[in-house]
Amino acid sequence: MKCRICGRKAAVNMRQHKLALCRDDFLEWVPQQVERFIQKYKMFTREERVLVAVSGGKDSLGLWDILIRLGYRADGVYIGLGIDEGIAYSGKSQELCEKFSSNHGLTLHVVDIRKEYGHPVPVMSELSRRGKGKPCAVCGLVKRHVMNRAAREMGYDVLVTGHNLDDEAAVLFANTLHWEGEYLLRQGPLLPGREGLVRKVKPLCRIYEKEMAAYTLLRDIDYIYEECPFAAGSTTTYYKELLNKLENDHPGSKMTFYVKFLKSRQSGLFVEKEKIQQSLHPCPNCGQLTSTDDLCSFCRMIDKISQ
Amino acid sequence: MKCRICGRKAAVNMRQHKLALCRDDFLEWVPQQVERFIQKYKMFTREERVLVAVSGGKDSLGLWDILIRLGYRADGVYIGLGIDEGIAYSGKSQELCEKFSSNHGLTLHVVDIRKEYGHPVPVMSELSRRGKGKPCAVCGLVKRHVMNRAAREMGYDVLVTGHNLDDEAAVLFANTLHWEGEYLLRQGPLLPGREGLVRKVKPLCRIYEKEMAAYTLLRDIDYIYEECPFAAGSTTTYYKELLNKLENDHPGSKMTFYVKFLKSRQSGLFVEKEKIQQSLHPCPNCGQLTSTDDLCSFCRMIDKISQ
Repeated sequence: MKCRICGRKAAVNMRQHKLALCRDDFLEWVPQQVERFIQKYKMFTREERVLVAVSGGKDSLGLWDILIRLGYRADGVYIGLGIDEGIAYSGKSQELCEKFSSNHGLTLHVVDIRKEYGHPVPVMSELSRRGKGKPCAVCGLVKRHVMNRAAREMGYDVLVTGHNLDDEAAVLFANTLHWEGEYLLRQGPLLPGREGLVRKVKPLCRIYEKEMAAYTLLRDIDYIYEECPFAAGSTTTYYKELLNKLENDHPGSKMTFYVKFLKSRQSGLFVEKEKIQQSLHPCPNCGQLTSTDDLCSFCRMIDKISQ
Repeated sequence: MKCRICGRKAAVNMRQHKLALCRDDFLEWVPQQVERFIQKYKMFTREERVLVAVSGGKDSLGLWDILIRLGYRADGVYIGLGIDEGIAYSGKSQELCEKFSSNHGLTLHVVDIRKEYGHPVPVMSELSRRGKGKPCAVCGLVKRHVMNRAAREMGYDVLVTGHNLDDEAAVLFANTLHWEGEYLLRQGPLLPGREGLVRKVKPLCRIYEKEMAAYTLLRDIDYIYEECPFAAGSTTTYYKELLNKLENDHPGSKMTFYVKFLKSRQSGLFVEKEKIQQSLHPCPNCGQLTSTDDLCSFCRMIDKISQ
């Protein structure tokens, strides 16, 4: 198989795009695609200060690399969750983020949850009795809160996460199987900023996970291969496997599912978001927007585990 | 495992409903469920004349049996498609429909496509060059047209088909994967009648395929086991298998997917149907409503193959 661009031997064959590319052209193609989606969904400009949430995985480190290559002003933030079961997951992922940032002379902010809030995430989860033994719900709550807080406090214009097409398609699939209207109206590449909430964007939302794996590999970026030890057996993992089967039998299905969803929402398939969106107000403690009465879920959780 | 109702040994265990029943109670339970959905979706009354489209398969013959047991005035219509590849599919299925109707002293109308329109469906499909070698598209067109025509000409109030939950979930799944807005707004247990189109309803839309298989088996109804020889390898079959995997791993998923879809549409997740529905007008040849200019798709197809 030959590279569509230069005719040399292809290194990556993307059946989903009917496109094969050599190493060099693939490494140019991925950032071009990301740039295209940053523009298309009006995510941010080269003048704005961008904060990339990095976990040490291929998606977020690959994304940081791409944004720097594209000339964006992107710093990183690493959140130390304190997940050290089995493989010292958090310690190892922090090292890889630090190594990447120092290799490239970039700024990395580190927020250590244990130091900031007294407990690592798995202990927070146990103490707060949310999530039935799995810390994933509390972990998501903590990450959303802390990423937003870090971006606001340090004056960034936009918070960027490494969610790829496989992530987005799996979430969309879960929300569709249960017809979760509110989530269907909200999920997308860009969540606009408002008082107390910084703008959030996903520049990899149309890049396949395997494309990011090939990118970080060919760019020689050292990342943590292991999944979070708590991810095994999760519903998202299950849906990803089901969608992988679909994608394997019908290449391009995942992309069609996600992109056509965005298009039909854009062209008015659903009711307008405002009609069913609940009213939000600032949490009296932290100032982040919340739909709950009084304190936001994060502050209530912290309150509970401090008692 | 014991019958939830009488405590005797259960014959059918429905994990999807967390319900096990003995033979006798199961054979009462299925018609009760069907009655419940006939009422819930306001399908028809005991005063109306009902026409059941029967194919000789378990769903349509089982449904006819249920409607008669429930006291509805239900006649049958069998459409002879002329699909005789391999197993003499059409001949065999007609025999089974005739046997069922004569055993129960019921009225069965037979429409023979070859006699009425000069060719069996597979030949129509070839001559009209629709559907890329598979007659399924033409078959659907013919059945929709002829069922509607039969119901109108013979003065029935409502046309009833044996689509079960697995059928409906697979169609919904296909339309969702591609976000086919127009179909998502239209798919449902009841399609109201209008000038030129008789009301169409699906009383089995919330009954699992395996429940209908158990029902016809336990009721000793003789039906055609074989699938249509053209169904193998179809997209619908593929989606059914994928949903079966999901259902097997998470019992009840199929039902949740379909029922929550109906509910969220009911509660206004989508735009109103009227906003995107195209205008329909009566076909100048047959009088059935159509969205195409001039002749409807069926009459155009017949025109084409008669030249």
